[in-house]
Amino acid sequence: MDFSSKILENAVNEVSRLPGIGKRTALRLVLHLLKQPKENTAYLSEALLHLRNDVKNCEKCFNISDTDLCDICNNVKRNPEIVCVVEDIRDVMAIEGTSQFNGLYHVLGGKISPIEGIGPQNLQIESLVKKIAEGEIKELIFALSSTMEGDTTNFYIYKQIEKFEIITSTIARGIAVGDELEFADEVTLGRSIVNRIPFTQSLRA
Amino acid sequence: MDFSSKILENAVNEVSRLPGIGKRTALRLVLHLLKQPKENTAYLSEALLHLRNDVKNCEKCFNISDTDLCDICNNVKRNPEIVCVVEDIRDVMAIEGTSQFNGLYHVLGGKISPIEGIGPQNLQIESLVKKIAEGEIKELIFALSSTMEGDTTNFYIYKQIEKFEIITSTIARGIAVGDELEFADEVTLGRSIVNRIPFTQSLRA
Repeated sequence: MDFSSKILENAVNEVSRLPGIGKRTALRLVLHLLKQPKENTAYLSEALLHLRNDVKNCEKCFNISDTDLCDICNNVKRNPEIVCVVEDIRDVMAIEGTSQFNGLYHVLGGKISPIEGIGPQNLQIESLVKKIAEGEIKELIFALSSTMEGDTTNFYIYKQIEKFEIITSTIARGIAVGDELEFADEVTLGRSIVNRIPFTQSLRA
Repeated sequence: MDFSSKILENAVNEVSRLPGIGKRTALRLVLHLLKQPKENTAYLSEALLHLRNDVKNCEKCFNISDTDLCDICNNVKRNPEIVCVVEDIRDVMAIEGTSQFNGLYHVLGGKISPIEGIGPQNLQIESLVKKIAEGEIKELIFALSSTMEGDTTNFYIYKQIEKFEIITSTIARGIAVGDELEFADEVTLGRSIVNRIPFTQSLRA
């Protein structure tokens, strides 16, 4: 791409560093900003800088938070004995959306992925083991993505904590609600048969 | 979406104002920034502010430029007697990419679109008519999108300038190079037959 302006080229380059945004999309976005009032760009820049410089991670669960302890960890109505291990804040938001979980979270900040250079030391695993060693947690629910990296991370954490007397569980894998059996993949369908549950239990959720 | 942080929510809201970016994509983008060094966000914000506050429009063709006159208008090797009317800077970049045009441009800044509230007074049409009245231009090439808005804009400009003695032309509509006839739409194919050109001329480009 040949730009008529270095300033424009620089802005397009910066925007196209964002994941999933190519040069053409970046150009479309910055030209949109140019057509909008100057305040809009100021608000956007301000919001991004404010986020990057001032947002915190909850000291307890490492969720993104404006305060030292996040609203979930601060909520006395929640059960601190059950902790759900998730990859990032989007998973917290997804599970909170179900209104089916009343415990606390532990946000790892990613999955173990040698290809991307992410090892256990880059994730909040040590802090999780420490929390469990302190003895307040009775059940740990693994809720990572069902991928090779997710399974590896689950297993790594499990090995670190199997010496402690806590219940470990993992969220159910199976046929999504509303899905037709014939279109389900074999692995998922197979797991859903092996891990079948009492029919009466299925009536509850 | 329920956010655990107001700062995060604000950043997601600002990013999701960009065209084609929903809340989920915005969240993915800002979480990416949070995982990157702080400088990256600073560079991005800086580049956007710099663009919005400091970029200019070329005084002659209204292309985006760092200087009062853009590189194209400033280039003495280009023919100022032929002017190509385009919608925005992306079209300039596209035509420049072909290396088939050696004249100057006139960037309208959009198309007449009553639905979007864009009238002739919002576009660089008056300045184009003035340029033509001054007599330097011999040929005007319309190169707007082949849509109702594009055709309306072409016709509006044509009506304004038909009293001047200049050649007006429009870029050829036809079957794209490499396309199979059987898949072409009827209107395009019809136009390509009506506006057929001497075979020897087709050998030149």
